[in-house]
Amino acid sequence: MKNSENYPLPDVAALLDSALAIKIQNQLDNKTKPIGSLGRLENLAFRIGLILGTEKPELLQPQMIICAADHGLAAEGISAYPGDVTWQMVENFLAGGAAVSVLSKQNNIALNVVDCGVRHDFATRPGLFIRKVAKGTANALHGPAMSNEDCQHALINGMNIVRELPGNAILIGEMGIGNSSSAAMLLSRLTDNDISSCTGSGTGVFGNDLKKKTEILEKVLEKHKDATEPLGSLAALGGLEIATLVGAVIQAASERRVIVVDGFIASSAILVASKMRPSVLDYCIFSHRSDEKGHSLMLNEMGAEPILDLKLRLGEGSGAALAWPLLMSACAILREMASFDTAGVSRDDDNQ
Amino acid sequence: MKNSENYPLPDVAALLDSALAIKIQNQLDNKTKPIGSLGRLENLAFRIGLILGTEKPELLQPQMIICAADHGLAAEGISAYPGDVTWQMVENFLAGGAAVSVLSKQNNIALNVVDCGVRHDFATRPGLFIRKVAKGTANALHGPAMSNEDCQHALINGMNIVRELPGNAILIGEMGIGNSSSAAMLLSRLTDNDISSCTGSGTGVFGNDLKKKTEILEKVLEKHKDATEPLGSLAALGGLEIATLVGAVIQAASERRVIVVDGFIASSAILVASKMRPSVLDYCIFSHRSDEKGHSLMLNEMGAEPILDLKLRLGEGSGAALAWPLLMSACAILREMASFDTAGVSRDDDNQ
Repeated sequence: MKNSENYPLPDVAALLDSALAIKIQNQLDNKTKPIGSLGRLENLAFRIGLILGTEKPELLQPQMIICAADHGLAAEGISAYPGDVTWQMVENFLAGGAAVSVLSKQNNIALNVVDCGVRHDFATRPGLFIRKVAKGTANALHGPAMSNEDCQHALINGMNIVRELPGNAILIGEMGIGNSSSAAMLLSRLTDNDISSCTGSGTGVFGNDLKKKTEILEKVLEKHKDATEPLGSLAALGGLEIATLVGAVIQAASERRVIVVDGFIASSAILVASKMRPSVLDYCIFSHRSDEKGHSLMLNEMGAEPILDLKLRLGEGSGAALAWPLLMSACAILREMASFDTAGVSRDDDNQ
Repeated sequence: MKNSENYPLPDVAALLDSALAIKIQNQLDNKTKPIGSLGRLENLAFRIGLILGTEKPELLQPQMIICAADHGLAAEGISAYPGDVTWQMVENFLAGGAAVSVLSKQNNIALNVVDCGVRHDFATRPGLFIRKVAKGTANALHGPAMSNEDCQHALINGMNIVRELPGNAILIGEMGIGNSSSAAMLLSRLTDNDISSCTGSGTGVFGNDLKKKTEILEKVLEKHKDATEPLGSLAALGGLEIATLVGAVIQAASERRVIVVDGFIASSAILVASKMRPSVLDYCIFSHRSDEKGHSLMLNEMGAEPILDLKLRLGEGSGAALAWPLLMSACAILREMASFDTAGVSRDDDNQ
């Protein structure tokens, strides 16, 4: 577990095609608008063009991947919701009743739910991948959340799921009562920030309960103080859904797919992945700044600037689904807007 | 012109249905998510529900209305672009090559372009409303931009266009070389802010040119120092596209349509309208915070909190079209998400 290179992780190439970059920028600058006047939408178009390797990018068959798993640490009372909500929400995703179900349907995003380690037996059905490594993680207060083998297993599951899915873009979400604790601990461990600056309310832990949550996480980090390497930290601190997402995003980046990242917990998977494959970040579009304490810090640590700031704190991929139409807009601008020449519109320098 | 009540403006009812408000809020709180966890999307859903008078809001046949006109003041060199760009961009909107054309098509928004006073003769065609009051405004440095009669005419045109259009939502945009100057002067005059804090680069006026622009606007304001009433200010400072939009939004609000406001210039029409019919603001969704200096100030003056902050500075309705899918998402959440009871998901208080 000390050497992450034991894992059969694919390479991820940095985005460095300067010829294409110049081509895309020229194209943006010749559209019928003042230069740069579409602001951050232009940055988005530029980035997606580079990822997909074309100045006429088209996003095809987007796949929402929601990874779900239970957390042994939830027994310590770190969440406002009972653990059963994990499996109940998986059912709700598949039945079309969750926010991410509604938003994915609205935006023609295929919904894939992955049981990475939920403490429940699901009936098989379309849209559900049963890739259960264990019935939840162990309680990280007493030992590692998962064994090295289980962690590796989850990573490979994530890689294989992406290999199976069509399209050139994935959106990542998660479900797991207790998983804001894993995300907070991973942030603290992998970026050397104090756990209190990384720990937030999750689904609704406030006041004394938040203080208690932070104290427990402090103890868990102390228990696993020797786990400092990315995958060792992930195995020690959990969870199975985060590990599956780590595999998924590294695979997606290696295939030059666009990765649309949701909130705090999905971002923690990117943080772990980027510690092993730094170029993964080149393929990520961060959809929103979550209201969860710790997310802004996490984004800063990765140099990420999210698209939306709507004070969301739901997770599940809902922010990624909400931002999706803006990615479609960015591509449509590059593909469909007229240039000054073709439209017969005068430029600003014609005025001189 | 002293008394705006000479205009046959419809009444706009304040949104005060507290029974419906409670119903919508209850519905949001019972959705399968932690209370308030969809952040500002919930506020948006709440607002649209109130406007449309239902807890199951559905946005139908959205109409983009882009009002275009020329400005006599452009002769003073206050814009980076030549005046011909106004009519050229009208052609570009209709040909499908402008940002707002591409974004409206992407989001199934009907595009309506209004010639409110462009210095050009257009061939008639579908999607183009020729409601030309004059071939541009007069140079406001030497006299009022328009006569009281022309201003009234433009307002009535705007009202009539909305009456003709189907659906329950309008999105407002504008085109007019020189119109960031009118918007800046209206902001300064109607809110008592110094013109220098209201004047920005528009499509690309920087450094000394921006200083010169500000000085010219200062002179125009001094010339029309007696025009302090909303419609008197509008007639004195221009422009015809802003006046047409003022009529359009008051009509739309009186019919309880959702009004999606674009950037700085579109917002200036709301500012003028709200000085006559304050409840117009209840019907407005501000789509984005523009990078144009003065827009944040203008939004603050109206107590408005925009949805997006993407550093756009294009106008034309492009920001409104970009934000549109988020309004659709807000409504879909209210209409389609499951409640805790129907989905069989445990609540946080089941945990106690």
